Amino acid sequence: MTEIKIKERIEEANRKTLDRMLSAETAWVGIKPAIEAIPGMNRNVILHAGPPIEWERMCQVQKRGVIGGILHERLAATEEDAWRLAERGEIEVMPALDLNTVGAGVGIVTASMVVNICQDGKTGQKGYCAPLEGRVGLSGWGVYNETVEKRLQVLEKVFAPALDYVLTECGGIDTKSIIARGTQMNDESHTRQVAEGLILVSEIVPPLIQAGLDRETLITCLDIIIKTERFFHSMGMASAMSILHGIQGLEYSTIVTAMAGNGVELGIKVSATGDEWFTTTAPHLEGMYLSTKWSQKDAIPWLGDSCVMETMGLGGLAAAAAPVVIQLRGGTFQDAIQQTEEMRAICLGENHNFPIPSLEFKGPPIGIDIKKILETGVTPVSHGGIISKEGGQIGAGSARFPMECFQKAFYTFAEKYQLL
Amino acid sequence: MTEIKIKERIEEANRKTLDRMLSAETAWVGIKPAIEAIPGMNRNVILHAGPPIEWERMCQVQKRGVIGGILHERLAATEEDAWRLAERGEIEVMPALDLNTVGAGVGIVTASMVVNICQDGKTGQKGYCAPLEGRVGLSGWGVYNETVEKRLQVLEKVFAPALDYVLTECGGIDTKSIIARGTQMNDESHTRQVAEGLILVSEIVPPLIQAGLDRETLITCLDIIIKTERFFHSMGMASAMSILHGIQGLEYSTIVTAMAGNGVELGIKVSATGDEWFTTTAPHLEGMYLSTKWSQKDAIPWLGDSCVMETMGLGGLAAAAAPVVIQLRGGTFQDAIQQTEEMRAICLGENHNFPIPSLEFKGPPIGIDIKKILETGVTPVSHGGIISKEGGQIGAGSARFPMECFQKAFYTFAEKYQLL
Repeated sequence: MTEIKIKERIEEANRKTLDRMLSAETAWVGIKPAIEAIPGMNRNVILHAGPPIEWERMCQVQKRGVIGGILHERLAATEEDAWRLAERGEIEVMPALDLNTVGAGVGIVTASMVVNICQDGKTGQKGYCAPLEGRVGLSGWGVYNETVEKRLQVLEKVFAPALDYVLTECGGIDTKSIIARGTQMNDESHTRQVAEGLILVSEIVPPLIQAGLDRETLITCLDIIIKTERFFHSMGMASAMSILHGIQGLEYSTIVTAMAGNGVELGIKVSATGDEWFTTTAPHLEGMYLSTKWSQKDAIPWLGDSCVMETMGLGGLAAAAAPVVIQLRGGTFQDAIQQTEEMRAICLGENHNFPIPSLEFKGPPIGIDIKKILETGVTPVSHGGIISKEGGQIGAGSARFPMECFQKAFYTFAEKYQLL
Repeated sequence: MTEIKIKERIEEANRKTLDRMLSAETAWVGIKPAIEAIPGMNRNVILHAGPPIEWERMCQVQKRGVIGGILHERLAATEEDAWRLAERGEIEVMPALDLNTVGAGVGIVTASMVVNICQDGKTGQKGYCAPLEGRVGLSGWGVYNETVEKRLQVLEKVFAPALDYVLTECGGIDTKSIIARGTQMNDESHTRQVAEGLILVSEIVPPLIQAGLDRETLITCLDIIIKTERFFHSMGMASAMSILHGIQGLEYSTIVTAMAGNGVELGIKVSATGDEWFTTTAPHLEGMYLSTKWSQKDAIPWLGDSCVMETMGLGGLAAAAAPVVIQLRGGTFQDAIQQTEEMRAICLGENHNFPIPSLEFKGPPIGIDIKKILETGVTPVSHGGIISKEGGQIGAGSARFPMECFQKAFYTFAEKYQLL
């Protein structure tokens, strides 16, 4: 094939990919046990954040999450047995993203754990993400104890059945509209989703009240929705995932479909190269710690799938929408604007669905393109939480995804289409 | 008294006034019938927006509101009788602001109509404002018919008793904190209070559910709170009023304590000159109409007390917080910033309670000073709704309060302190 022809094919594929991202119509449509919701999930599988990793190399906090998952599933009776099972490889431990599930933080999802289900009404594709758990929990922070088990039971036995019923009754909650309004109210949808959480409350309360649940269930559900910090984040991530699910494996498309870390390695996927991961050493986040007693030596390198938000053109790419996020790390309003403007260099388009007031209502960039990354030398900035070696969030900041993974991806892309 | 001495006294008084405005701690503490809530209210009084006006000169839509009020109170049996009563002056028709009540729009408040009660915890002073009614209603739009009467009955018999109980039980809802968060989420708190309304829902839902109301009452209350457009506006206005109530009649203070219009005249009050109104002809608002079928010929000049928000340093003074408000009228993000920056010239300070992200987290100006207005020639910009001659909102825009009322006020101030 001539070089011109290849160039045209890539452009056409990228246009199609971008169109799909922009015209997606995402909604929160359900919340069910992972085993029922996620195709490919089974009783012996435990999902984790980031690219694949052998048990021996997995970071301690994620290992502990897997052990917690084994215990929660009663696949082992004691913690000792659980470690033995894991070490022997008798549990299938795999990347959540490989099943279109977003593993925020350590990203543990087991068969009985419930996941929010979001769907892109345009492609019909779905994305899944466990509900956020607040400051302590299994899925995000890898912490497992009696309190966490109790909360998981409430989510599985009370919250999910009630909300799944309500979502079915009301036909789902439009998350694209929530994110659009949030972007106008200083949310960048990764480390800040304050307005989005508030909108969610206002949208879910009426059908929740109408559903005729008993008073105790109603109070439990509202308590979880209103009082869990950043509760909408899970729906934001599942929505982004549902869109990215719809752009996987498009021939010639150079658009990034996944970016994630497991605390040891960072990995990305690209549309045309399908399920293949391209990895590099995970960097540390630069940012602000929640207490002066913590510093980088307490933190693990990038861990989590939440940069699914950046992959969909939000978070670090939409920094201009949420200057307060940058300010909390010592940056200025102008820094926030600059960050978004810089990211345009590596993106294929502008997301007009989410106009940002301080950009004179221009949208943030969307569609991270490995070709543009290689051409410009600019790498994507992702916002994220800083996770302690002991488990739990100890700060928030940002990091650049290193050039190496994009180079690897491009090499494989070039090989596939015989460009070398 | 020497000129120096006077200057010092004014400075000291203004400092004190500003301190009180900045340190106010406002909360929504109740909702009761006006007759119970508002000192000075009685069965034969009907409140209206703006400065005092004789019946003959009152604009038609406000007159119709008064007639509606008479009928709602059953002070007359027929519309004909109501007109007769009003024309003969047998009903006491007076400015809402003279009783520390904010009359948004036409501003009708009668004895049985309920008002939200907000209180500044620091001074103990209160402000009152009828709940917003959506697109049609008596208090704001002067419309009275069977539907409006039914809604008033629901507010008086169901909503107010329930909410007043809930507010007492939970100790009130902190409106200062809501406005602070709103300012960070693109609300200027006069024509836009989207985030503030959402926060209110999240704050009131848990105590409302806990209160153990019967299901029907609960649904009715939530329906009103969630579905009434701009429902928080009333609490914002009553909160501003409670602060302004606390700075009335401070000797030597040149700070504006009221700005309002009745569709014919605009009027202002100043702290040191107490209850006296200084008036001028009401200007038309410049802005955007909700339909192309409307233009300025369909609108009445400035009507309403809602610029209590500007008097407290929000709305037009905080335009930078809400560029979308300016954009909807054809302005840019930079225009919004400029408007706030211009207003600093006539204000005594900066409201650090309400940092605005796009101003690198500087607060909006606060404390409109008639002295500075006269010195600079800059007059305050107020945002507001455009009201139809037939009643109802037909647009939104802004207007400058003309120099004349500030000149009159300063003349009286100068006379009082023998500066002439």
